[in-house]
Amino acid sequence: MRDNEFTIEGKNEIIEAFRAGKSIDRLFLLDGARDGAMQTIKREAKKHSVRIDFVDRTRLDQLSPGGKHQGAIAYMAAYEYSSVEDILAFADEKGEKPFIFLLDNIEDPHNLGAIIRTANVCGAHGVIIPKNRAVGLTSTVAKASAGAINYTRVARVTNLGQTIDELKEKGLWFVCADMDGETMYSLDLKGAIGLVIGAEGSGVGRLVRQKCDYVAAIPMKGDIDSLNASVAAGVLAYEIVRQRQV
Amino acid sequence: MRDNEFTIEGKNEIIEAFRAGKSIDRLFLLDGARDGAMQTIKREAKKHSVRIDFVDRTRLDQLSPGGKHQGAIAYMAAYEYSSVEDILAFADEKGEKPFIFLLDNIEDPHNLGAIIRTANVCGAHGVIIPKNRAVGLTSTVAKASAGAINYTRVARVTNLGQTIDELKEKGLWFVCADMDGETMYSLDLKGAIGLVIGAEGSGVGRLVRQKCDYVAAIPMKGDIDSLNASVAAGVLAYEIVRQRQV
Repeated sequence: MRDNEFTIEGKNEIIEAFRAGKSIDRLFLLDGARDGAMQTIKREAKKHSVRIDFVDRTRLDQLSPGGKHQGAIAYMAAYEYSSVEDILAFADEKGEKPFIFLLDNIEDPHNLGAIIRTANVCGAHGVIIPKNRAVGLTSTVAKASAGAINYTRVARVTNLGQTIDELKEKGLWFVCADMDGETMYSLDLKGAIGLVIGAEGSGVGRLVRQKCDYVAAIPMKGDIDSLNASVAAGVLAYEIVRQRQV
Repeated sequence: MRDNEFTIEGKNEIIEAFRAGKSIDRLFLLDGARDGAMQTIKREAKKHSVRIDFVDRTRLDQLSPGGKHQGAIAYMAAYEYSSVEDILAFADEKGEKPFIFLLDNIEDPHNLGAIIRTANVCGAHGVIIPKNRAVGLTSTVAKASAGAINYTRVARVTNLGQTIDELKEKGLWFVCADMDGETMYSLDLKGAIGLVIGAEGSGVGRLVRQKCDYVAAIPMKGDIDSLNASVAAGVLAYEIVRQRQV
């Protein structure tokens, strides 16, 4: 369920939101509409890498909180995003080696919230999420984070693979979880690190996985072969915490 | 949202379910009703320690899937329960020291499902939940467990504290999580062990906590001071796994 507080509708309202520098997570635009205001919205969306879904009028009517959408509805982020630079600066300020979570298309808002909460509690410096496909910082995410969203730096990037390359140049190592990796206990996770968490079901995407320095396996000893994404994130994060403090 | 498949209504249907040995999680009975069939239901409920909520007719009408409740509605367990003996026998069969999860009033079905999933994946032999107040094995729990409920032994007990005492006599040690405990990395968690997980917010109850041999602290390094219950369970469970395999 989406909180109407964070949905805006109407072409001019959306253009204003872009101009005011607000974080827009997602757009729903009337398929085929090509007037000037609509072109402006598409241009701004492209500039900020906002995902657009082209939909029919019936769908817009369903999504509309006030029935005045004029063919355009935007989902705003319930919280302001941070930047990758902010996250690195925060680690530097604390005199710690960077420890960053990267989420590869986590689509469940409860999982995203629980992971942001874990990132905060375990002392990570921030969370990076991709702009497209993944869920944004909605009010459901905020609730599931138990308030952690107010304290945790969350940055959105256009291309997770490219961000990993840039962070590698700054000395970060990357680890992702997968069943066929090496047991996490045998890996050296003490350095500046990016922990990559994949979506439930599909796991970490192939391109992102190829960029990881380590593939860590959480020992699986039961009848089923995967943990909930937020539980897996917690287990790996605390193996990093353990190694860093020994 | 409750799956109607697991709700039965009508006094005779409920008496039949008790006689057939079905697992009933919870009863809603018309407040003040005292006829013979109702007395039989109350007697059976007491015998099997089933929680009864006495409610008015309006509430029963709301809960009723078919409008034929006759003053009595029962929530059935979506899955059959196991017993504490089964769990111990399973550990024995595998030639392993018992490793059991005990849940002290976990009320969120998503958390219960995720914890059962974690228990299965990390190789624990079973999960013990209290009969009263906590959530039972509903279809929401089953879904959140990602199928683990079909493989994992889950026992319900009347009194968690008493069960802990009985298991201590069989050589188990008990550990619960709390912020003011000792760092989990410094505890010896290699033996036969019961991991006690408390409800979000309230944590492990005082009486149960007093029975624990260890209070383990998960290092908290952020701005908020608790993890999601299922994440905390996963982090502690995997510290046990790590220590056991070293």
